[in-house]
Amino acid sequence: MDDLKINKRLIMTPGPVSVDPRVSQAMSNSILGQFDYEFVDIMNQTMELIRKSFLTKNQWSFPIDGTSRAGLEAVISSIVKPGDDVLVPVIGRFGYLFAELVTRAGGIVHSIYKPMGEVFEQSEIIEALDQYQPKVLAIVHGETSTGRLQPIDQLGRACKERGIFSVVDAVATYQGMVIPVDEWELDAVIGGAQKCLSIPSGITPITFNDRFSDAINARKRVELGIRSTETTEPDHFIRSNYLDLAQLQDYWSPKRLNHHTEATTAIYALHTGLRLALSEGLEARAQRHAFHQEGLKASLKALGLEIYGDESNEMKMVICVNIPDGIDDIAFRDNLLKNYGIEIAGSFGELKGKIWRIGIMGYAIQKQNILTFLSAFATHLLAQDLIKNLDIENAIKTLINHYDNNAIS
Amino acid sequence: MDDLKINKRLIMTPGPVSVDPRVSQAMSNSILGQFDYEFVDIMNQTMELIRKSFLTKNQWSFPIDGTSRAGLEAVISSIVKPGDDVLVPVIGRFGYLFAELVTRAGGIVHSIYKPMGEVFEQSEIIEALDQYQPKVLAIVHGETSTGRLQPIDQLGRACKERGIFSVVDAVATYQGMVIPVDEWELDAVIGGAQKCLSIPSGITPITFNDRFSDAINARKRVELGIRSTETTEPDHFIRSNYLDLAQLQDYWSPKRLNHHTEATTAIYALHTGLRLALSEGLEARAQRHAFHQEGLKASLKALGLEIYGDESNEMKMVICVNIPDGIDDIAFRDNLLKNYGIEIAGSFGELKGKIWRIGIMGYAIQKQNILTFLSAFATHLLAQDLIKNLDIENAIKTLINHYDNNAIS
Repeated sequence: MDDLKINKRLIMTPGPVSVDPRVSQAMSNSILGQFDYEFVDIMNQTMELIRKSFLTKNQWSFPIDGTSRAGLEAVISSIVKPGDDVLVPVIGRFGYLFAELVTRAGGIVHSIYKPMGEVFEQSEIIEALDQYQPKVLAIVHGETSTGRLQPIDQLGRACKERGIFSVVDAVATYQGMVIPVDEWELDAVIGGAQKCLSIPSGITPITFNDRFSDAINARKRVELGIRSTETTEPDHFIRSNYLDLAQLQDYWSPKRLNHHTEATTAIYALHTGLRLALSEGLEARAQRHAFHQEGLKASLKALGLEIYGDESNEMKMVICVNIPDGIDDIAFRDNLLKNYGIEIAGSFGELKGKIWRIGIMGYAIQKQNILTFLSAFATHLLAQDLIKNLDIENAIKTLINHYDNNAIS
Repeated sequence: MDDLKINKRLIMTPGPVSVDPRVSQAMSNSILGQFDYEFVDIMNQTMELIRKSFLTKNQWSFPIDGTSRAGLEAVISSIVKPGDDVLVPVIGRFGYLFAELVTRAGGIVHSIYKPMGEVFEQSEIIEALDQYQPKVLAIVHGETSTGRLQPIDQLGRACKERGIFSVVDAVATYQGMVIPVDEWELDAVIGGAQKCLSIPSGITPITFNDRFSDAINARKRVELGIRSTETTEPDHFIRSNYLDLAQLQDYWSPKRLNHHTEATTAIYALHTGLRLALSEGLEARAQRHAFHQEGLKASLKALGLEIYGDESNEMKMVICVNIPDGIDDIAFRDNLLKNYGIEIAGSFGELKGKIWRIGIMGYAIQKQNILTFLSAFATHLLAQDLIKNLDIENAIKTLINHYDNNAIS
C-alpha cells in the first residue's frame, strides 16, 4: 500500500476544518511519557489554557480523550443515574443526541421542542424547569444542524436557584464566540476541537464546577487494581470507566492516579491551538468569525440566494443557505469537492436536501479563502445551467467592498 | 504562555513510546472532511491494514477513537449486558481492569487468580469455563504489570466449542509478536497504539468476527435523531453511545452512518504506522523485539542484576528487573529521567518499588538506543554507591557481542 497522499482542500463545513500549520508542527514533537515531569507540566498548562478559554476559575477544566461526543457522554453519564429526570430542549439534531445520551445512562428524558429553524425564549425553558423539576438541564448552545444559536445566558442562574445542574453543549460555538462560563453560572460545559478551535478531532475540552464535582463524586467507584483497601461502593456508580469524570479528576489532579495513557500529540495540539486562540484574543476571535460571516452572507444574498432561518438567532459560525430549486444537493457538493477541492455540508432529517451549511470556523476563515470560496461556489452554480439570474458580479463586489471598507481581514 | 519546547527523550517504558518520524510527518498532512471520498478511501485502507495486522478476514476491523482502555470498554460494554457471566483470569493489574469493566457493564465477574509473576495453564482456564459456563471469557494476553505472556492459542477454540465469546486484551503484545486471530479462533481482540505499534496514544485498533457481531447487534439501539421510523428497541440496549460497536459498524461500513467525527490525524498515524509495520513484516518485527530483548536481558544479568519472574512465560516487549536492595525506586527513575532523558517504569500494587519494567517496544528498539540505554543505566546505578560488584565491562561486552554475532541490528 502506498504512502498517504493528501490533496489540498478548502473545507467550508461545520467541521472538521483545516488546522493551523503551527498546530500540526507542534504535534510532530517527540512523545513524552505520561508521568514525565515535563509532560505533567504541559498537562497543567493545558488545564490553565482551558480555564482561560472558558473564562472560568473551575479547577476541573481538562480534556476528554475522544471526539466531542465522548465529552458529551462523559458529562451526561457521570451526572445522570438511572431514574434521574433531565430536561432536554430540542431545536435540531444535537438536542436529540443529548436525549439519546440521557436514555443510555438510564435517565428519564423530558423533551420540549421547537420547529426546525427556531430557538426557545429562555423564559420558556425556565417554565419547563419549574414544570418538570429535573435534576439536570442539558442544552445545545449552537445547533449546527439548523444554524441556530440558542440564548443561554440566563439559564445557569435559573438552574442554580432551583438546585438543577446546567449542562451545555458548546461544541460548535467554542472559540468562535465568547462563552463566559462563570458569568453565566453554568455547571458543566463541553467545547469542541475540530470546529472553531480548529485542531484535529479526537480530544474534547470540558469544564465543570465544584457543585457538579460533588454530585458526580457521590457516584464514584474506585477501580479494581487501584483500590488499596476495601472501599464502600455507591449504589449507582458511574457506568463508564473510560468516561468517568470522577476517575478523570484523580488523573488530572496532583494525585495523578493512573487511568488511561494520555493522548500525547492531541495534548500538544490542544495546548498550541488554545495558546494561539488566546493570543488572538477571545473577543477578537469572535469578531473575526462574525465579520467574515457577515461579508459572505451578504455576498450570497447579492448572488441571489436565500438565507435559511431567522437572522436574529443565527450562529456566526455557519451560514445556512436554501438549496435552489432543481439542484441535486449531493451531486452538487460532490462535484464542488472533486472539481475544486472545496467542501460544504448538507444537513440532517427534514432539512436534508433542503439547505447547505457553509462553515465559518477557525483558522481557514481568512479573506483569501472566503473570496476563493465565493468565486468557485458561484461559478459552479452557474455551470449547473439551472438557476436564472445569478448575479456573480454583484456578489463578488459585495464581498470585496466588505473587506475594503473594514479593518479586519 | 510560551511555545511547547519538548526535550529529547529515550523512552524505555511499556508505553507510551517514541513515534517513528514518518508517522509524525504523516500526521501533519492537511485535514480531510470525514465524508470526503478521499478520506473514506483512507478509512477503508485502514480497515484492510488492521485486518492484515491481526491476520484476520474479519470485516469488522476498525479503530476506536480513544486510548486502549476505550477499546477494551467498547468491546466489553457492547457484549456484556446486566446479569451476564464473565470469566476473568487475573494475573496482574490489567486482569483487574477487565473485571472492573465487566462490573461497570452490569456483568457478573468470575475471577480466577494466579500469584503475581505466574500465568495460567490453558487447561486451568478451560476447566474454569466448564465450571462457570460464562457468556464471555475476557483475558489479557501480555500482562505488562508483571511482564508475563499468558498463552491463549487454545482458548479461542475451547470457547467456540462451548458457545462462549473470547475477548482478548492484546494491547501490549500487538505488533510486538504475531497474533493470528483467525488461526486462534478468537472472537474479539483489542490492540494498542502507543506500545509496539509506536504511534501516539489516542486510537485503538480492534477486530471481531461475525458471531460476535450478531451478539452485539441483538443489543443495538438506533439513536434518536438518526431513526427514520419507529424502531423497536431491545430490552438491554448497549449503554454507551460513543463506544457502541453496533453503531460504529454502521459508521465503518458502506452505510457511513454519521456517528462521531473521525479523528483525522490519528487515522493518518494509524494508517502509516500499520503500513510501516506490515512492510517490516509481522514475523520480522516479532523477531526484532525478541532479539533486542534477549541481548539487553543477557547484559543486565551480566551486569549483576536479577531478572524478575520465570523466563519461560516472559513477554518479549518488557524486561522486568528486581530493584537492588537499598535503591529508592522513584528517586532513581526521576534522576535517570532528569539527568539522561531516559525513562523506565516502576510497577503497580505489590510489585511497586520491587521491580523496574524496561520496555522493548516499537520504533526506538534499535542497536544504538539499546547500547545508549545500557551504558547510561549501568553508570547511573554505579553512581548510587549502593550496589557492590556491578560488572559494567561484562555487561557492555555481552551486548556488543550479541549485536556483533547476530544478523539483526
